[in-house]
Amino acid sequence: MYFASDNWTGAHPRVAASLTKHADGFATAYGASDLDRAIEARFDELFEREVAVFFVGTGTAANALAMAAINRPGGVSFCHREAHVIEDECGAPEFFTHGARLAPVDGLDGKIDPDELQQEIRRFPPDFVHAGQPMAVTITQSTEIGTVYALEEIETISGVCVQHGLPLHMDGSRFANALACLDVSPAELTWKRGVDILSFGGTKNGCWCAEALVFFDPEKAKDLPFIRKRAAQLFSKTRFISAQFQAYFEDGLWLELARHSNAMASRLAASIETSEDLALAWKPQANEVFAILRKSKAQELREKGAVFADWNMPRRHSRGLDDDETLIRLVTSFATTDEHIDRFAQAIGAV
Amino acid sequence: MYFASDNWTGAHPRVAASLTKHADGFATAYGASDLDRAIEARFDELFEREVAVFFVGTGTAANALAMAAINRPGGVSFCHREAHVIEDECGAPEFFTHGARLAPVDGLDGKIDPDELQQEIRRFPPDFVHAGQPMAVTITQSTEIGTVYALEEIETISGVCVQHGLPLHMDGSRFANALACLDVSPAELTWKRGVDILSFGGTKNGCWCAEALVFFDPEKAKDLPFIRKRAAQLFSKTRFISAQFQAYFEDGLWLELARHSNAMASRLAASIETSEDLALAWKPQANEVFAILRKSKAQELREKGAVFADWNMPRRHSRGLDDDETLIRLVTSFATTDEHIDRFAQAIGAV
Amino acid sequence: MYFASDNWTGAHPRVAASLTKHADGFATAYGASDLDRAIEARFDELFEREVAVFFVGTGTAANALAMAAINRPGGVSFCHREAHVIEDECGAPEFFTHGARLAPVDGLDGKIDPDELQQEIRRFPPDFVHAGQPMAVTITQSTEIGTVYALEEIETISGVCVQHGLPLHMDGSRFANALACLDVSPAELTWKRGVDILSFGGTKNGCWCAEALVFFDPEKAKDLPFIRKRAAQLFSKTRFISAQFQAYFEDGLWLELARHSNAMASRLAASIETSEDLALAWKPQANEVFAILRKSKAQELREKGAVFADWNMPRRHSRGLDDDETLIRLVTSFATTDEHIDRFAQAIGAV
Amino acid sequence: MYFASDNWTGAHPRVAASLTKHADGFATAYGASDLDRAIEARFDELFEREVAVFFVGTGTAANALAMAAINRPGGVSFCHREAHVIEDECGAPEFFTHGARLAPVDGLDGKIDPDELQQEIRRFPPDFVHAGQPMAVTITQSTEIGTVYALEEIETISGVCVQHGLPLHMDGSRFANALACLDVSPAELTWKRGVDILSFGGTKNGCWCAEALVFFDPEKAKDLPFIRKRAAQLFSKTRFISAQFQAYFEDGLWLELARHSNAMASRLAASIETSEDLALAWKPQANEVFAILRKSKAQELREKGAVFADWNMPRRHSRGLDDDETLIRLVTSFATTDEHIDRFAQAIGAV
Repeated sequence: MYFASDNWTGAHPRVAASLTKHADGFATAYGASDLDRAIEARFDELFEREVAVFFVGTGTAANALAMAAINRPGGVSFCHREAHVIEDECGAPEFFTHGARLAPVDGLDGKIDPDELQQEIRRFPPDFVHAGQPMAVTITQSTEIGTVYALEEIETISGVCVQHGLPLHMDGSRFANALACLDVSPAELTWKRGVDILSFGGTKNGCWCAEALVFFDPEKAKDLPFIRKRAAQLFSKTRFISAQFQAYFEDGLWLELARHSNAMASRLAASIETSEDLALAWKPQANEVFAILRKSKAQELREKGAVFADWNMPRRHSRGLDDDETLIRLVTSFATTDEHIDRFAQAIGAV
Repeated sequence: MYFASDNWTGAHPRVAASLTKHADGFATAYGASDLDRAIEARFDELFEREVAVFFVGTGTAANALAMAAINRPGGVSFCHREAHVIEDECGAPEFFTHGARLAPVDGLDGKIDPDELQQEIRRFPPDFVHAGQPMAVTITQSTEIGTVYALEEIETISGVCVQHGLPLHMDGSRFANALACLDVSPAELTWKRGVDILSFGGTKNGCWCAEALVFFDPEKAKDLPFIRKRAAQLFSKTRFISAQFQAYFEDGLWLELARHSNAMASRLAASIETSEDLALAWKPQANEVFAILRKSKAQELREKGAVFADWNMPRRHSRGLDDDETLIRLVTSFATTDEHIDRFAQAIGAV
Repeated sequence: MYFASDNWTGAHPRVAASLTKHADGFATAYGASDLDRAIEARFDELFEREVAVFFVGTGTAANALAMAAINRPGGVSFCHREAHVIEDECGAPEFFTHGARLAPVDGLDGKIDPDELQQEIRRFPPDFVHAGQPMAVTITQSTEIGTVYALEEIETISGVCVQHGLPLHMDGSRFANALACLDVSPAELTWKRGVDILSFGGTKNGCWCAEALVFFDPEKAKDLPFIRKRAAQLFSKTRFISAQFQAYFEDGLWLELARHSNAMASRLAASIETSEDLALAWKPQANEVFAILRKSKAQELREKGAVFADWNMPRRHSRGLDDDETLIRLVTSFATTDEHIDRFAQAIGAV
Repeated sequence: MYFASDNWTGAHPRVAASLTKHADGFATAYGASDLDRAIEARFDELFEREVAVFFVGTGTAANALAMAAINRPGGVSFCHREAHVIEDECGAPEFFTHGARLAPVDGLDGKIDPDELQQEIRRFPPDFVHAGQPMAVTITQSTEIGTVYALEEIETISGVCVQHGLPLHMDGSRFANALACLDVSPAELTWKRGVDILSFGGTKNGCWCAEALVFFDPEKAKDLPFIRKRAAQLFSKTRFISAQFQAYFEDGLWLELARHSNAMASRLAASIETSEDLALAWKPQANEVFAILRKSKAQELREKGAVFADWNMPRRHSRGLDDDETLIRLVTSFATTDEHIDRFAQAIGAV
């Protein structure tokens, strides 16, 4: 019953096989091999336009490099208060930008509230040198708490961005799960809704280590080759990433895996809803399920072999925690099986 | 005839197999899995003492994080004028240290001259705030031009370091090749000779992407977990690196591969010595061979299918280049075969 | 009627005279002149202990260098949500620390709430590498909104700092005004209450440009000479700062000036309290007065020659603003005269 | 006999008087006062075109901000091997640029050799991501060793810059002395010869603390207001700098002072030439004189009351030092009198 995180998995067999297949022979290093080029072209196809794509090693690298690419002196990027970039990257975006700030914006359901965003941006009048200057808005899709921005919600936020001349970045560490949830095309979920830069994650959804930074306007990425190299994210044997992506995209494997983990999360949530001891903290839309339960119950579940994480309650949530309660996070993945769900359902006494 | 670089290879079959073997199941993320712990222990064994080891994604990351770990305000690190850190990392060490400087030191054969080192360090009197302050010495083993520091040469340099209270870092991107050349133990080549920090490379010698930063005094590494995470070099599925190292170390595979590439380089050099058109630029000791030839000859060899790089002539070298000459670099690897060497020998008309 | 800011003034005549007096002759540069040493010793006396003191050019420099001196990778400093460091320094603290973060903490009256502080610090468990690590708490005395921390309030906050092993920094850009308000000694207001580092401001209170960074434990400042020089804050003719401080301290001029501006602020507040059109936003304790009034009234006052700034309403304040209202800030200084106050009182129709 | 440095002086009486004159009254802070605007306009006049000018506190700040304004990821600026920016600023340019590198270029007489410059720039092929990318050339006028670039020498260097698309920066910490030496206009010495950015120094030539950063193409400076504020170099009472510049420029005071210090240096050099114990190291053109003498003689002169600095012999100089010899630097200034020179001449036994 491994629900600690989708990054506790290894690699999908087809991803592993692709690495073995490409292990032989010689190929141009540093991103210029035939396979690298082919996968880059695959990204163009997926997004229905020419994009500039850069392979990197971690989601944190993708997010931080995105910020570096659009950096401004005294710059401030706006993110949700509980976003991964501000809560879980040890200051990488600030480090990569030499000190540009992340300003937290409130909002329910793990999503930026567009009115709060307006208000925060307005604290930085143009040319008022003391406050610094706005430089970007970044949203997480699916969000840190397993919800998903609807297309129109993204559009509203990108409208605010356009009004202030700010690029919109999407942290898509679980992009496939959001796609699977909304059942729309990658283009629909991104540039057609005003997203300028995407951190495209493969690692959590079946790869070992395959992340990409996608610029929908390649012109904006012209310094990125130097920025990436200087940040030690240019791999010599880049095809070890390309090879993973090749299998990942082939025959729609990535969406199939995301649909599977989302479905597992739905089943998990359904079980929890029938349990007397656990309460769903909010409705999951992707592959993360959050539940409130007594600490003693959490302990009991762990003793029965369930692996999951305690989580900080979002600062703005309708339901607080009693002293003897805890909020837990359960993450499903491509490797979650019906049996895991069944065993957990049994453990919590679900009907 | 692929001699462009040892990073044009893929992965050794045993490394690839290890990845497949570990692709299944669930394991703690971010470096805390059983396999990660086992490989860390393996490093202790290899170096005959307790070390602090950090897996990272690129050699540039290892070098730059080493500098970050020992960073001082206004700090200056001394390296050979043609070292990889100063010539080929796009300023990553400066970026990771927020501006600490790399000061080039001259020396023949790609090695720092200890007297020049003394002289350069002395330009920074203690407490003279205007000049900045020395913070480290870094050497490359084997060097950028395929030579190898002898044990006593390292000892002389570490003596200078001790005198000035500076840590000694070794860029061991081709560490195995140096070990194989000198036929000494990893401990003999490092901390027993005064090396404090080692960038330990696996990628160029048969791994896909497996580098490690080794601190011989774990106390010096106490901030490194935060430094590494902030630099986006903490991988979630760390065991994809551990799995590579597992195969790499098993039954001495790594040394076997290094001995093979060194031997291939020796054969290559021997061929060149018998050629009328090519001259060895200097005597190779590891897996890189440098030759001087006419540009037209280089062109001809490329047309025959040889792949290699043009190289900048080291600033201090006894033999300059005529206008119609070029210096080329030929790198061998675990994947180089006798056939490659034979074909090249034939192409250059070696006896 | 100049109430725009205390930095709209020039220099007090005795400060100006001291500069003229020291303009002749030759003296050691870069902080080593006899006058520099004498003023450093004066700081020891003022604070009743040996301190390490560094002259710098701006309050922003003092604050940012303080953060740089105690910097940690992935570091997070806690400040009040409306503090100068986070609202008005264009990211200087982040720049000087290469990306350490300022985390806003709420609290009424412009002061950090100790319970909120505890809660925020606890979001960073030791060794949890993803969140980063706490590195300091910084408070402003007097605060950005003209209130003053009581001694016991400082003590409570420094208690939280001690518990988490964090240094406490005080931004004393208006330190003299706080001293004058509380009528305590510099030592009582700082290290005797647990303050570790003080940004000591002279500029707003009668100097041209004289700020100092004071470390109550000189050991903590050992890298500061390099940090300051590298940040371009080591002046060659340092005695131009020392000469200002000499006059500033002589015969208690600094406290006399601060008492004067505080008294002027009290008179101003008293006038406002009797006005029908203006309402005091909160009770002033130092030299800043905030009032709420209709926008049309503000416009009228400006036409009558009053100079003041519109201000953002603190996020947590009991009294919101109607659409046709504005919050204004009025700052008094050593140069404010009874006549300024009388004219303003007349303009607002005070009794 | 104070020849330690021109920054051992205080302020010229007219500069001191101007400060006193402007100490009264109220004026807009942060660079927007009438006086600030007037002095900005004065810079336009002096340089015979519209320039963007930014007052800062130190020459190091001016140089480092210039680099920050033109910063590129992986950027490399080329300077003379003995330039102030690389030898005496504790890494400030690297800090302000978050790690852009300064690459030393050789050249006789303290001046960059254009051929060496070409060669160094060519080590950075466009788009070769590993090496980084050239970003600027910076020259010092007058140089660190008291020589002066001729107009045509500047033109040759700016020609190289144009060829590679690099901006040319001039460190004019002793700009007035160069002007006085060459007897040309400020425009002739700068933008008419291809200089793009100038660090304009007033401190060493009669001000307390007055430096300016001048962009000849204001468009290139559009981010500078944020960059300067973030670097803590935006003074609140900016008119304390403007007031100094006002007196400095009035009736050509600045050029008068520079001519005086140059003349004093010439007299000093003439004395040395007639001395048996001292040898001029090279011909001075501005206000710095370098001499070679026995260490015992230097000691003797110090005992007689002469104050001067020992200096590092430039790496490329025709005349080396014997073990018992030393190179010393003697700097004259606006405050140097004939009497100082006469006493020194007597001390060295000059005829």
